[in-house]
Amino acid sequence: MLSAEIQKPLQQPVIALLTDFGITDGYVAAMKGVLLTLCPMAHIIDISHHIEPQNVRQAAYVLLSVYRYLPPETIVVAVVDPGVGSSRKPIAVQTSQGTLIGPDNGLFSYVLRKIKYENVYALENPMYHVSGPSTTFHGRDIFSPVAAHVANGVPLHKFGPNLTKLEWLPDPKLHITSETVQGEVIHVDHFGNAITSIGHLTWDADDMVKLYPIFKVSFDEGITEIPQFGVEAVEIAIKDTVIEFLSLTYASVPKGQLISLINSAGMLEIAVNQGHAAQQLGIAAGDMVTLNFG
Amino acid sequence: MLSAEIQKPLQQPVIALLTDFGITDGYVAAMKGVLLTLCPMAHIIDISHHIEPQNVRQAAYVLLSVYRYLPPETIVVAVVDPGVGSSRKPIAVQTSQGTLIGPDNGLFSYVLRKIKYENVYALENPMYHVSGPSTTFHGRDIFSPVAAHVANGVPLHKFGPNLTKLEWLPDPKLHITSETVQGEVIHVDHFGNAITSIGHLTWDADDMVKLYPIFKVSFDEGITEIPQFGVEAVEIAIKDTVIEFLSLTYASVPKGQLISLINSAGMLEIAVNQGHAAQQLGIAAGDMVTLNFG
Amino acid sequence: MLSAEIQKPLQQPVIALLTDFGITDGYVAAMKGVLLTLCPMAHIIDISHHIEPQNVRQAAYVLLSVYRYLPPETIVVAVVDPGVGSSRKPIAVQTSQGTLIGPDNGLFSYVLRKIKYENVYALENPMYHVSGPSTTFHGRDIFSPVAAHVANGVPLHKFGPNLTKLEWLPDPKLHITSETVQGEVIHVDHFGNAITSIGHLTWDADDMVKLYPIFKVSFDEGITEIPQFGVEAVEIAIKDTVIEFLSLTYASVPKGQLISLINSAGMLEIAVNQGHAAQQLGIAAGDMVTLNFG
Repeated sequence: MLSAEIQKPLQQPVIALLTDFGITDGYVAAMKGVLLTLCPMAHIIDISHHIEPQNVRQAAYVLLSVYRYLPPETIVVAVVDPGVGSSRKPIAVQTSQGTLIGPDNGLFSYVLRKIKYENVYALENPMYHVSGPSTTFHGRDIFSPVAAHVANGVPLHKFGPNLTKLEWLPDPKLHITSETVQGEVIHVDHFGNAITSIGHLTWDADDMVKLYPIFKVSFDEGITEIPQFGVEAVEIAIKDTVIEFLSLTYASVPKGQLISLINSAGMLEIAVNQGHAAQQLGIAAGDMVTLNFG
Repeated sequence: MLSAEIQKPLQQPVIALLTDFGITDGYVAAMKGVLLTLCPMAHIIDISHHIEPQNVRQAAYVLLSVYRYLPPETIVVAVVDPGVGSSRKPIAVQTSQGTLIGPDNGLFSYVLRKIKYENVYALENPMYHVSGPSTTFHGRDIFSPVAAHVANGVPLHKFGPNLTKLEWLPDPKLHITSETVQGEVIHVDHFGNAITSIGHLTWDADDMVKLYPIFKVSFDEGITEIPQFGVEAVEIAIKDTVIEFLSLTYASVPKGQLISLINSAGMLEIAVNQGHAAQQLGIAAGDMVTLNFG
Repeated sequence: MLSAEIQKPLQQPVIALLTDFGITDGYVAAMKGVLLTLCPMAHIIDISHHIEPQNVRQAAYVLLSVYRYLPPETIVVAVVDPGVGSSRKPIAVQTSQGTLIGPDNGLFSYVLRKIKYENVYALENPMYHVSGPSTTFHGRDIFSPVAAHVANGVPLHKFGPNLTKLEWLPDPKLHITSETVQGEVIHVDHFGNAITSIGHLTWDADDMVKLYPIFKVSFDEGITEIPQFGVEAVEIAIKDTVIEFLSLTYASVPKGQLISLINSAGMLEIAVNQGHAAQQLGIAAGDMVTLNFG
């Protein structure tokens, strides 16, 4: 889109924010103020500010589900950071699609299982921090100014030393045999849909090949194709309930009826057409779900 | 503002989003990612993402109340879409003020009663969709890429065939005689104010002429003038309560007192000064309201 | 950043919004529509739209806590406005950092205690309002169009007459002796942290000098330095609880434990590591807090 002569700092960089700060108090606005002070051309996207407080795992899943749809070279600033000010390191990671900035607490580990990355840097150079940074709000005082400087073209190695080891979240539970896949609920969304660990985002390539006849997920292109049904029988068990089929759309069952489908992130999801599955079945993150091939 | 030589794709287009997705999960961010990937210059406005899940009628009202204040040529992407992936069509509508993009389920019908429109197109051309679109998230996979391409100057007829018939919501209840107007509550807002179907947005020109002496609404300019009071007596009945006057401002009655006024959208509204009318009176959308001329 | 020849109207102005409107109804979107219609280059930041309805004092605190981080020349539009349409005046204030626009009800008084300001104008010139403004939504009809015109370079004196007197909120409770500081909770944030009136934002320079040995707040630069602990004993009393130390970070105590620290705005804050202090102790805005020097 841009000619070779136009340098990176002149583009309109995209900075995407993911926090557990809520939107009542002005914490996010302080971050945006710092970003736009240092990089007036930045285009800021809010991924979410409603991650459950300190729930790093939920943030990791939400980031994963969105990441491939962000513009190339997007700078993600993710701050779910119960260890702020402690020994946990502030980091920046160069991926094949952009830059990830935030605390080294596993927040990026789901994305980094699926996306190639190169170097990781500890953000220790105070020259790129807000002067006299607080010990409780690195989102404003370290992560935002660093993101703005990245947007302005400062290379990552300027921010601090290379790190060779990252904190990593445990993978979501997932046990695959030829007859059964056992997983867990990893997220309940705004509609009450229960999204499980079974599917595209958590599977390795080997799993994909094994289950491809069922889910028809195109691993190479990263896009979920429409699954083919009826070829093999499947049933999905969660709590005391069994759903005996996979559906294509929410509207393919009557209003209020339980349904299971492969969602828009390529994951097995339990839903209720125009209803709230999590409330109806009492589902929470961590609940087990089993997929049986008949 | 722009000289004639500058083509549409070079402007800074405004894209306005209206959904029931909430802002916790990253669904909206995925849409914005697609929009900015394809149209980096877009300026995105969030109309609301807190429409009650699947409440097409509420979305239709919120869109109507905002529509005239959006910049000329705004591209609205509205996704309250219980039928996603089913036979309901994804559409784009060319209006005198811009483009409306979303499912053909009546979402646009309140706006299209008040605003001139020309052509409607079914968004069937896969060339303008995200490759391998999901069956559950057309907001990301069909509506957003189409909106970005419209912003980039692609004419609507490229997206699919012309449609001659649209889905239409039933009009809000409204019965007008010389002595009485009967209507219904169409929306309870953030403050607990109950907005009724009685007023500028739902009335035809004939109704306007009839009631003009009371409400002094300037139909041609689309702006509510300040009503003249005391000329004729009116009373407003809702639930078991009667309000015996129309007020100009919330502050014209003591704190905590019930009030009725013509709101900023030109609609009859029941409110409580610095209170929550809907909770105080137990009002919900669909409740009847009667306006009597003494 | 810009050469001297480039006039203000050609910059990318930042307009920051602070309201109690919520984000469900489209009220904020109507404001943004007016802003972008009149000033298509504006970059809009949402400070918060979740101020408790009509809580001017909460809005004043949130604005104060964010204000120094907004870009230079930011135009703030703040609308928490129970007196809308009544005799309270719509105003614009020129500060050393930008422009404040909103109702004259004390909303700006916390900021104006800390930031130099010059002139105040009543926004009486209808030429810069939406034609036929409503009596209930000056955010859309007066404050937004005025903000857009300011962004476009219209000088403040064009909007109306100079005002010599402003409405002022009472200062937060604060009583300082050599042994004790008594203050009050001024805000409970999204995490349940109770932010008190004791600290940088509310203290005068004299107070700062007196308490500097304890809090080590750098008044001149406006940045909170890390406090030095152990030099003097302090204890913080709130409700029936006494906290016997100040901490540097949330993570410096075990999860679930009560903590007191100087927060990122330089204020004394009561928190629970990864918990909700306000719920745990039953704290609400207005509760007394005492800081004793041992």
